[in-house]
Amino acid sequence: MTAKGLQVDINSDMGEGFGAYRLGDDAAILDIVSSANVACGFHAGDPEIMAATFSMAREKGVAVGAHPSFADLWGFGRRVIPHSVDEIERLVAYQIGAAQALSAYAGHPIRYVKAHGALGNLTQTDRGVAEAVTRAVKAVDPSLICLAIALGFQDRIARDAGLTVRSEIFADRAYTEEGFLVSRKLEGAVIHDAEKAAERVVRMVKQGAIETISGQALKTPIDSICVHSDTPAAVVIAARVRARLEEDGISVRAFAAIA
Amino acid sequence: MTAKGLQVDINSDMGEGFGAYRLGDDAAILDIVSSANVACGFHAGDPEIMAATFSMAREKGVAVGAHPSFADLWGFGRRVIPHSVDEIERLVAYQIGAAQALSAYAGHPIRYVKAHGALGNLTQTDRGVAEAVTRAVKAVDPSLICLAIALGFQDRIARDAGLTVRSEIFADRAYTEEGFLVSRKLEGAVIHDAEKAAERVVRMVKQGAIETISGQALKTPIDSICVHSDTPAAVVIAARVRARLEEDGISVRAFAAIA
Amino acid sequence: MTAKGLQVDINSDMGEGFGAYRLGDDAAILDIVSSANVACGFHAGDPEIMAATFSMAREKGVAVGAHPSFADLWGFGRRVIPHSVDEIERLVAYQIGAAQALSAYAGHPIRYVKAHGALGNLTQTDRGVAEAVTRAVKAVDPSLICLAIALGFQDRIARDAGLTVRSEIFADRAYTEEGFLVSRKLEGAVIHDAEKAAERVVRMVKQGAIETISGQALKTPIDSICVHSDTPAAVVIAARVRARLEEDGISVRAFAAIA
Amino acid sequence: MTAKGLQVDINSDMGEGFGAYRLGDDAAILDIVSSANVACGFHAGDPEIMAATFSMAREKGVAVGAHPSFADLWGFGRRVIPHSVDEIERLVAYQIGAAQALSAYAGHPIRYVKAHGALGNLTQTDRGVAEAVTRAVKAVDPSLICLAIALGFQDRIARDAGLTVRSEIFADRAYTEEGFLVSRKLEGAVIHDAEKAAERVVRMVKQGAIETISGQALKTPIDSICVHSDTPAAVVIAARVRARLEEDGISVRAFAAIA
Repeated sequence: MTAKGLQVDINSDMGEGFGAYRLGDDAAILDIVSSANVACGFHAGDPEIMAATFSMAREKGVAVGAHPSFADLWGFGRRVIPHSVDEIERLVAYQIGAAQALSAYAGHPIRYVKAHGALGNLTQTDRGVAEAVTRAVKAVDPSLICLAIALGFQDRIARDAGLTVRSEIFADRAYTEEGFLVSRKLEGAVIHDAEKAAERVVRMVKQGAIETISGQALKTPIDSICVHSDTPAAVVIAARVRARLEEDGISVRAFAAIA
Repeated sequence: MTAKGLQVDINSDMGEGFGAYRLGDDAAILDIVSSANVACGFHAGDPEIMAATFSMAREKGVAVGAHPSFADLWGFGRRVIPHSVDEIERLVAYQIGAAQALSAYAGHPIRYVKAHGALGNLTQTDRGVAEAVTRAVKAVDPSLICLAIALGFQDRIARDAGLTVRSEIFADRAYTEEGFLVSRKLEGAVIHDAEKAAERVVRMVKQGAIETISGQALKTPIDSICVHSDTPAAVVIAARVRARLEEDGISVRAFAAIA
Repeated sequence: MTAKGLQVDINSDMGEGFGAYRLGDDAAILDIVSSANVACGFHAGDPEIMAATFSMAREKGVAVGAHPSFADLWGFGRRVIPHSVDEIERLVAYQIGAAQALSAYAGHPIRYVKAHGALGNLTQTDRGVAEAVTRAVKAVDPSLICLAIALGFQDRIARDAGLTVRSEIFADRAYTEEGFLVSRKLEGAVIHDAEKAAERVVRMVKQGAIETISGQALKTPIDSICVHSDTPAAVVIAARVRARLEEDGISVRAFAAIA
Repeated sequence: MTAKGLQVDINSDMGEGFGAYRLGDDAAILDIVSSANVACGFHAGDPEIMAATFSMAREKGVAVGAHPSFADLWGFGRRVIPHSVDEIERLVAYQIGAAQALSAYAGHPIRYVKAHGALGNLTQTDRGVAEAVTRAVKAVDPSLICLAIALGFQDRIARDAGLTVRSEIFADRAYTEEGFLVSRKLEGAVIHDAEKAAERVVRMVKQGAIETISGQALKTPIDSICVHSDTPAAVVIAARVRARLEEDGISVRAFAAIA
C-alpha cells in the first residue's frame, strides 16, 4: 500500500496560439491535466486566447499559472534571446501581471508561475536567470507558487527566497546523472512509448526520485508531471500517464488551491 | 477668494519609448505634472521603460496610471485598429495587469487607468468602447480610478458602474459646443500660446466648466488637466499652466493617493 | 464544342504560416492550383516559409505571385488597418520586393501580384487603394501581372495604367448584381456544396460572365478561379472545381509563363 | 604628393526610425557621407522611412545600400538573435528585396549590401554567417556590391564567390593586432576626439592599412570609412573626417555608381 494517499499534479502548456493561429488541442489536454501553464503573449498567446484559456480551465476545474517567456513569437520562445538578468526580471514581471489581470477577468486567478521554453531551461541551469525569475515573482506577488524543474537552480533559489515552490519532472524526457535533461540530439532523450513513459512516471512518483538514463535515483520532491500537448502523440502519452497514475492509486490533483 | 482651497491634478503621457527609441522629455515633464499616464507596451513602452518610468515617478512623488491603447506600435496608438468591444475589453485588461505588476515591482503601484490615443478618443465618443474599458477596469481591479475625458461616455458610464472617476480637460485643445474636441483639421483647434492656454485652464478650473470655442461654459467636474510632453513647446505650455494655476492659488496635486 | 480550347487558371493563398504556426495544407492545394499567392510576411509568412513555398511551387510547376497585405499578423490581414493611400503604395512595394528576392532565391521568380484579405477587398471597391497598388506594381516592376478581382477598381485601373491584368472570380462566393461579393453575414453568401460550386464555375468560365445571386450574367474576362485552402472542406471544393473544369474540357493552366 | 588622386567613400547607417520614432539626424549626415546604409525594417526602418530616405539620398547625390539585420526592433539589431546560417541567408534575402523595391520606387536603386549591427559583426568574425550573407546577395542580385569590414570573413568570402567587394574601416574604433575591433568594454576602444579620429583615418587611407591599437599597420584595401550618425557628437566626428580627408587632397566619393 505504498502508494496510499499519494497524489501528484499534471501540468501542460496551453493557450499557445496567436491571432488566427492555434497549436495543440487545449480542450483535449484540459481533460487530462490538473494545471495549465498559460502563454502570456510573448512566445504565444494574446488577450483573446488567454481569457478563453483561463475560462476553459475554470470550467474544467484545472488550476492555472502564468507561463512567461522571452519575447519571441517567431521562435515560439524556444530560442535564448540575449537579455541581461535585470531585463529578464522585468519581462517576467510584465507577463505575470498580464496573466493575473486576464485570469482575474476570467474569474479564475493564476496560482503559479512557470517559465517557458528557453527561459524555462535557463531557470534550471543558470543561477542568474533563476534569481531574476524569483525576484520577479516575489516583487509582483509573493503568494504565487513557483513551478520549477526538480533539482534545478530555480527550485533551490525560489525556496531560499521564501517562495512556495513545487517541483516538476518531465513525463517523456530522459535525465542525465546530474538531473538535467538529456539533449534532444542524443538517442534516448525522448521517450515516445506511452506505456514506458507512464510506468517510469509512476516509479518516480512512488520513489520520490528522478530516474536517470543509467537507472540511478535522484531524490527530489515530485509535485507535478509535465506533459506535452502540441501533437496528438503527446496527448496520448499524457492520457496514459494520468490513467496509469490513477490505476496505481495515485490521485491527480492540482498542487494549487482552486478558488 | 473663490479659488481658496482649489486644487487640481495635471497629467501627461509618459514612458513613450520602445527599445532604443524615446519620445518626449519625461524627466522634465515629471517636474511639472502630478500624474503620469504610463504606456503599457502596446503603442509604446516595454518592461524596461515601464519599470524605469514608475521608479522615476515614485522618486518625484508623481502618481501613476496605466495608459492602455490599441496594439499599434507603428501608429503610436493614434489609429483606430478594428476590434470588437469584447476584444478591447481584454486588451485593456491585459495592459492594466502588466502595468500593475511593473508598478508594484517598482514600488509605486498604479492608481488609475486612462485610455491612450485613438482608444482614448473612442472612450469619449463611443458608448460601446467606454463600456468595454469600464468592464475591464472593474474586472481587473475596481479600486482603480478611471481618468476620463470630461463630459464623454467613459466619464458617465464608469460612474454608473460604480467606479471612481476623475474628469480631465485638455490644456491646449479647443472644445465644440457639445464638449468634444475641435478637429485638428480646423483652425483654432490647438492653442499654441502658453499664456493663453494657461489662462483658459485657470478660468475653466475656477468655473468648474469647459469653455467652448464660442465661449459657452459647459459645467463639469474638472479633476485633472491633460498636458503634452512630446515636444519642447508642449513642455513650455505645461510648465506655464502649472505656474499660472499656482499663481492663482490653485494647488496642483494628484487626484490619487500616493502610497 | 463551345469549351474547345478554353483554359483557365486556379489560384489560392499559400505560405500562410509564421514561425511555428501553419495554416492550410499547402502541399495538398499545390496539386490542385496553377498559381500560388504567397504571403509576404505582413499578414503571414516569414523568410523561411516564403522560400519553402516558392521552392515547393517550383517543384510542382505552379506559378507564384506576391500576396501583399496590411501589416496585421494578429488579424491575418483581414482587418482594414488605417493607412493613407501613399502608405499603402509603399507597404505593397516593400512586400513585392521581399517576394521578388525570395522567389529569385528559390529559383522561381514571382510573375504577378494579388492583394490579400482586407487590402484585396479594397482594391475591388476603393479607387484610391486600387490606384496605390497599381502605382506600387508599376514602380517596382511593371512586368509583373496584376491579378485583380473581376469587375473591380483594380481590374480597370491597372489596365488603364498599362499593366497586364488577369481577372479572377471566386469559386465559392455569391455575387451581387453589381459584381461585388455578397456579405458573409447574408444567407447564401458562401457556397458550401462542392458540386454546386464547381458547376457554377464551369458555367461562368464558359459564358465569360459572373453569375449574380439572382442569376444575372455580368460579362467579364475570367482568367483565374480563386479557391481557398485553409480548411479541409475548402480543399475538397478546390479539387472538385478543378476536376469539373477538366471534365468539361477546360484546361487548368497558369496565366503566367513559368520560367 | 602621395595623396594625389586618392579617393574614398564615407558611409553611415540611415533611416533608423520606426513609425513615430527617429534616431539620428539623417539630413545632416547626408551632407557628409557618400553612401547611406538604409535600414530594411528588421532592426529599424519601415516602408515610409525607407522610401523617404532613398528619396533624400537621391536628392543629395548619395549612393544607397541595403542594411539588413536580425529581426530585432527592440534591440535595434545589436543582439545576436539565434538563427541557423540558412535562416540568416533568407532573412537577408528578404530585406535586400524590400530595399530593392523601395529604392526603385524612389528612383534611386540600391547598389550595395552591408549587414547591420550584431549581424554585421558576425560577417566579420564568423565564416558561416559571412557565407550566408554572400549566398543571399548572390542569389538575389549578384550585381550588388558587398560592403564588408576590412580583413574580415565577409571581405574574403564574398570576393572568392565572385562578388564585387568594397572594404570599410571605422572612423572611431580602435583595432586589435588581428584587425578586429577592440571591445567597447576596454579603454581606448572608441575614439571620441574628432581631430584624432580624422587624422587617423587620413593616415590609414594614405597608407592603405589599418592602424592597430599598438601602432602596427595591417595592409588592406580601404574603400570606405564608416561613420556614425546617432548622436550629435558622432556627426561632428563624421564632418571632421570628411573635411580632413579633403584638406589632404583625398576626395570623398561613393564607391558605387549613382544612376
